[in-house]
Amino acid sequence: MSTVKRQLEPVPFTQVTFEDAFWAPRLELNRTVTIPHIYQQCEATGRTGAFDLNFERPVPSPIVLIFGDSDPAKWMEAASYSLATHPDPALEAWVDSVAEKIIHAQQQDGYLNTHFTVTQPEMRWKNLRDWHELYCAGHLIEAAVAHYQATGQRKLLDALCRYADHIDATFGHEPGKQRGYCGHPEIELALVKLYHATQNPRYLKLATYFVDERGQQPNYFDIEARARGEDPAHFWAKSYEYCQAHTPIREQTQVVGHAVRAMYLLSAVTDLAHENDDPTLLETGERLWHQLVTRRIYLTGGIGAARHIEGFTQDYDLPDETAYAETCATIGLMQWNHRLLQFSGEGKYADLIERALYNGVLSGISLDGAHFFYENPLASAGHHHRESWFVCPCCPPNLARTLASLGGYFYSTGANDIWVHQYAQGTAKMKVNEREVNLRQVTKYPWDGDVKLEIDVAGPQRFTLHLRVPAWCEQWHIAVNGEHASRSGKDELSMGEGYIHLRREWNPGDAVEYRMEMPIRAVWAHPAVRDLQGRVALERGPIVYCLEGIDHAGTILDRIAIDPHNVSNEFQVEQDDQLLGGVSVLRGKGTVVDESGWEDVLYRNRPPSSKSIDITAIPYYAWDNRAPGQMRTWLQAGGG
Amino acid sequence: MSTVKRQLEPVPFTQVTFEDAFWAPRLELNRTVTIPHIYQQCEATGRTGAFDLNFERPVPSPIVLIFGDSDPAKWMEAASYSLATHPDPALEAWVDSVAEKIIHAQQQDGYLNTHFTVTQPEMRWKNLRDWHELYCAGHLIEAAVAHYQATGQRKLLDALCRYADHIDATFGHEPGKQRGYCGHPEIELALVKLYHATQNPRYLKLATYFVDERGQQPNYFDIEARARGEDPAHFWAKSYEYCQAHTPIREQTQVVGHAVRAMYLLSAVTDLAHENDDPTLLETGERLWHQLVTRRIYLTGGIGAARHIEGFTQDYDLPDETAYAETCATIGLMQWNHRLLQFSGEGKYADLIERALYNGVLSGISLDGAHFFYENPLASAGHHHRESWFVCPCCPPNLARTLASLGGYFYSTGANDIWVHQYAQGTAKMKVNEREVNLRQVTKYPWDGDVKLEIDVAGPQRFTLHLRVPAWCEQWHIAVNGEHASRSGKDELSMGEGYIHLRREWNPGDAVEYRMEMPIRAVWAHPAVRDLQGRVALERGPIVYCLEGIDHAGTILDRIAIDPHNVSNEFQVEQDDQLLGGVSVLRGKGTVVDESGWEDVLYRNRPPSSKSIDITAIPYYAWDNRAPGQMRTWLQAGGG
Repeated sequence: MSTVKRQLEPVPFTQVTFEDAFWAPRLELNRTVTIPHIYQQCEATGRTGAFDLNFERPVPSPIVLIFGDSDPAKWMEAASYSLATHPDPALEAWVDSVAEKIIHAQQQDGYLNTHFTVTQPEMRWKNLRDWHELYCAGHLIEAAVAHYQATGQRKLLDALCRYADHIDATFGHEPGKQRGYCGHPEIELALVKLYHATQNPRYLKLATYFVDERGQQPNYFDIEARARGEDPAHFWAKSYEYCQAHTPIREQTQVVGHAVRAMYLLSAVTDLAHENDDPTLLETGERLWHQLVTRRIYLTGGIGAARHIEGFTQDYDLPDETAYAETCATIGLMQWNHRLLQFSGEGKYADLIERALYNGVLSGISLDGAHFFYENPLASAGHHHRESWFVCPCCPPNLARTLASLGGYFYSTGANDIWVHQYAQGTAKMKVNEREVNLRQVTKYPWDGDVKLEIDVAGPQRFTLHLRVPAWCEQWHIAVNGEHASRSGKDELSMGEGYIHLRREWNPGDAVEYRMEMPIRAVWAHPAVRDLQGRVALERGPIVYCLEGIDHAGTILDRIAIDPHNVSNEFQVEQDDQLLGGVSVLRGKGTVVDESGWEDVLYRNRPPSSKSIDITAIPYYAWDNRAPGQMRTWLQAGGG
Repeated sequence: MSTVKRQLEPVPFTQVTFEDAFWAPRLELNRTVTIPHIYQQCEATGRTGAFDLNFERPVPSPIVLIFGDSDPAKWMEAASYSLATHPDPALEAWVDSVAEKIIHAQQQDGYLNTHFTVTQPEMRWKNLRDWHELYCAGHLIEAAVAHYQATGQRKLLDALCRYADHIDATFGHEPGKQRGYCGHPEIELALVKLYHATQNPRYLKLATYFVDERGQQPNYFDIEARARGEDPAHFWAKSYEYCQAHTPIREQTQVVGHAVRAMYLLSAVTDLAHENDDPTLLETGERLWHQLVTRRIYLTGGIGAARHIEGFTQDYDLPDETAYAETCATIGLMQWNHRLLQFSGEGKYADLIERALYNGVLSGISLDGAHFFYENPLASAGHHHRESWFVCPCCPPNLARTLASLGGYFYSTGANDIWVHQYAQGTAKMKVNEREVNLRQVTKYPWDGDVKLEIDVAGPQRFTLHLRVPAWCEQWHIAVNGEHASRSGKDELSMGEGYIHLRREWNPGDAVEYRMEMPIRAVWAHPAVRDLQGRVALERGPIVYCLEGIDHAGTILDRIAIDPHNVSNEFQVEQDDQLLGGVSVLRGKGTVVDESGWEDVLYRNRPPSSKSIDITAIPYYAWDNRAPGQMRTWLQAGGG
């Protein structure tokens, strides 16, 4: 049962440290390589310089330049998170200089957008449908809140409050205001953050207005287009589903349109369910979540199958090789599920965060930290590679801010509760009932399912420790201080909603040994997913595996079949600390179609024959980090 | 071995009559329903009326109106063929009135195009790339030749000769002429027909010029675009492959671009190989043919996988449900293969004609003769249906002219030879060595492989009877006058290039009994055809089978699997004369995925289970003639 108020409070990322071989080096790489790389790209492409307001740009301008302010903003957010956990004077100097630039670009009336100040001032607030003006404002607000929280400095926050005040004076139901909202949701969730940073309820009210007004009739985008002298029917995306404006959110029955927009809107919707004590919004989120996860999501947590709208198509339309599955969309999925998780601690949301994080998000960044996937297909014939930057560079800074604040996804607290949502070696500081509790995980996760949890309390304290049992985990064992825990006795053990609940009086030095069995698993897709019929994928723990060309010299991966009926015995796990930053690979046998006899024939009256082949599967997220080449996640299911 | 001169001479369709239950009713329906229907549609849409030159049309005009002259032209061709085999005063009156209209639309200088006479006279010959001006001329020429041959009247032929003379004066290498050619090949093959009808070698020379100049550098379409003040790089189709102008035809290594354009060009190329004794053109055709049939053709003879260019994509890119496979393209394939077949009588060309005719062409027309497929996908979720007309109505009159002249594909003669390429009950009149031979087939083909051939000669005559052994036929038996024929003895029997060669002295009353075994066959596609991996189709004789929704109440056809390893025993053939105009259906057992247990899950760690289902397969060509619904040709291969 969900309640409409959050029962859980996330432990801030600033209180979580990683001491593991998996995340700790990635976060350090994010700080030392990725964040500087993005800064330099924003500089080199004039995105930070734009705030000096002395650029020239053609009209009509490329849309990606129109919303170019959002990229330094997301970088600023990432850099601020990094500073919050790791002092870095050089980075701080960059952050400060960009903050100054942003502040100086603000107009007298509070307006703050480089494109519509310099290039098209006459078009200010004239095309909310296409031009991302409020979207940019939202990212600047998120940046300002992060900057304030990291540095304690109010100057950028104050500037963005003035901008938010200007927006508040411009949009709303009141007479004289425009009844508009942005074609790309983002400002809604940003305003909730601003409300929390300032305690000013006007920002919450404005966020609520933006969510409630969206999709109402007469449709604002129709009105706005006619005011520009355009026929609304000529909207290139054909449907306002693209901008989440086809119908009010409470009336939506399926997740549609542009995937990032859907995720950002649903994040705000879930925020407002809590803030406004609004059960209709929580129900909306739960309904759309169910539809999404049972119909429209890739195994990797990727969402949005179609390139032409960067978004959703039909139920069960999940082609692997042409999957769009934008990195930003899966990051948005994590953000939304993180919010849903806090209501009553249902493990399905944390499961999905884990699936997204270790697969469809992590695939977005190279092991060198400076190359990125925008699209994350589940198969490639060999022509899909990470790039150091994009014409539309939304994904790199989104990855950077996600990694820099990753710890925030791991734990929550409640009245007398600690939830461990995710597993990684490291320490978290939190308070339960006003008393400080330190929790340390010792584990080789995600390569091993053994987790030792050291509970450091000042003195005896009674609370419930909730440990997530991942959906992939069919067998687990738990012991407290070396003794098997059970439903009775001094440790009250229970299980529900995807968590073990361990209620007891904790004492200094207590330790929980939690073992999640982590066999290799074969996974099948719903029979309605036509592109995956007769196919099977391999998973182990939270990791989706794939085959890469480099490990199968010359073989066309798409012709490889495995016998899926006993993969836990037929495949072996091998940890290789030298490979791909340290991974567990899966090795086994498969068969590959023998093409001989097919040279000069396209159709024939007997099936292709096969021969045996050694297979090596690597984690999906790690592909395309060696030689460019093919990749396949879904293999043909052969044998038995 | 091919020779560069045709060894075979097609027996004209006027000498072939059908007396069967399959084609005879279809040809009668073509005459009584389809041809009148198209006439009325051309009238109703102003296409015939346009020749009165008093219409109004916006500029820019829809492209399909710009080439609207071609539709009455193809109708005229179809109607003329029909008149040539079946007198019909009402139809003759229509034909005459349209011929008069066309003649009166001709300009003083011979020019004859309604759009560029009325709407955009200043753009005459200014955009050969896009505007089909010479394409329309080609269809008018084909119409005029057919009209002349059917009626003996020269008036339309003479008008089109004047137009051809005008074109000849306009285009060519000579000083003062434009070095142009049409973006849509068609006039080339039409000019060869005009050459044969008139014996005027200038028309052959002009056809040769058009074929030779195409794709030369500097590219004419670049020059022409710049002359219009356009950047050639802005060509919407991106590549001149679309218009067969990316490179000279002799340098092409694969069939690319718009499929109809490719087929019409290759038909002309093959004509010119013979006419000009040009081995380079025959080699070109053979090379491209090989590449096409081993890489880029559907099981139905459909070609051109992609809607956006109505044409070819990559090798082995043959998705079934989104197959474009335009009816006109497969008709073009028949025309081209008919030409290739005449060089040395290689059965592979007649095999492909058969495959195209009974499947991808015949699917283009409904059993009521008045509804048409433009696209012929090999699967449908239920939303693809024949239409009575199209915005671009190229396919209906193309079907009508093909059916009205169908007999022309059945036989050829040589110096001392008769070739029987196709089988159907009926009679053909032909001359061998100046002596008349009548040949009658008695057969239930395509539902049965037994063919009795009655050879009616005036007296003893020695020649070779070549009977095609279809590629699908693995076992056959032959007897002459009740005696088993053999390699020695008085009947010299040999086999080669896909034909039985039966050399003997024929006498009045001789009969050959030819039995082609016609088991049900399972067919697999090349492993590189990703969309067909793990799938299998059913064929019997020349017929490709499919499953239709109406025969499998409620079942999603895409989830049905069959055991393909013994289909000739597991499935039964049942002739049903009441069904779909009389067809053999295939009945057997399959399995269907059981969706229970998948209601709320998209991925899981065990495969879908299956249950048994009765399967009825109908001929692919006959689908969508009962209730609208699903259709699948390629089924999942399950079992063994």
